[in-house]
Amino acid sequence: MAELSPFCGIYSRALEIIGRRWTGAILRSLMAGQTRFNEIAATVPGLSDRLLSERLKELEAEGIVVRKVTPCTPVLIEYGLTDAGRALIPVVQGIAAWAEVWLPAAEAESA
Amino acid sequence: MAELSPFCGIYSRALEIIGRRWTGAILRSLMAGQTRFNEIAATVPGLSDRLLSERLKELEAEGIVVRKVTPCTPVLIEYGLTDAGRALIPVVQGIAAWAEVWLPAAEAESA
Repeated sequence: MAELSPFCGIYSRALEIIGRRWTGAILRSLMAGQTRFNEIAATVPGLSDRLLSERLKELEAEGIVVRKVTPCTPVLIEYGLTDAGRALIPVVQGIAAWAEVWLPAAEAESA
Repeated sequence: MAELSPFCGIYSRALEIIGRRWTGAILRSLMAGQTRFNEIAATVPGLSDRLLSERLKELEAEGIVVRKVTPCTPVLIEYGLTDAGRALIPVVQGIAAWAEVWLPAAEAESA
């Protein structure tokens, strides 16, 4: 258990990244194969273009999302998951699956 | 993708629960088989008794931790994971494993 402290640091950072508002839904959209800004926006109702742009930039800086620019007319911009982003798929699915099974039950118990 | 909104709600709540400061370390201690308050406290350096007590109560209210009181002298109080808590083990491990592999790399890339 001596390694708990450094572990907690990167564990916390991972939770901070995936727990940020909208990030889960954006990742799910990319995981479902959406690549264009407008397609991603359409799958996440309620998310403004400004926030989507901000979140995509954050995920790019964190090495989770890659932005590909194809220089044609009009310029083609596509988003995709990096290896780190693809490795996050089972993690996000695991959290969602746990929540779907256990959170309603926990709420009912404590109600 | 029509179910994104309710999904996001319980997904966010799950992240909120497991992402709360110290909760990851407390769960890891329980997962490692610690059952007594002082044992758990000893495996999480830096965590005050007051905060440990608070977190354990929250986890109990969320149906993740169970507090067992055995009426003997002195009274024996033990903590353990419920089924929901045990179901969280692979989730926590998945987040930690992802962070260990990908976060240092992402940091190096963005440095």
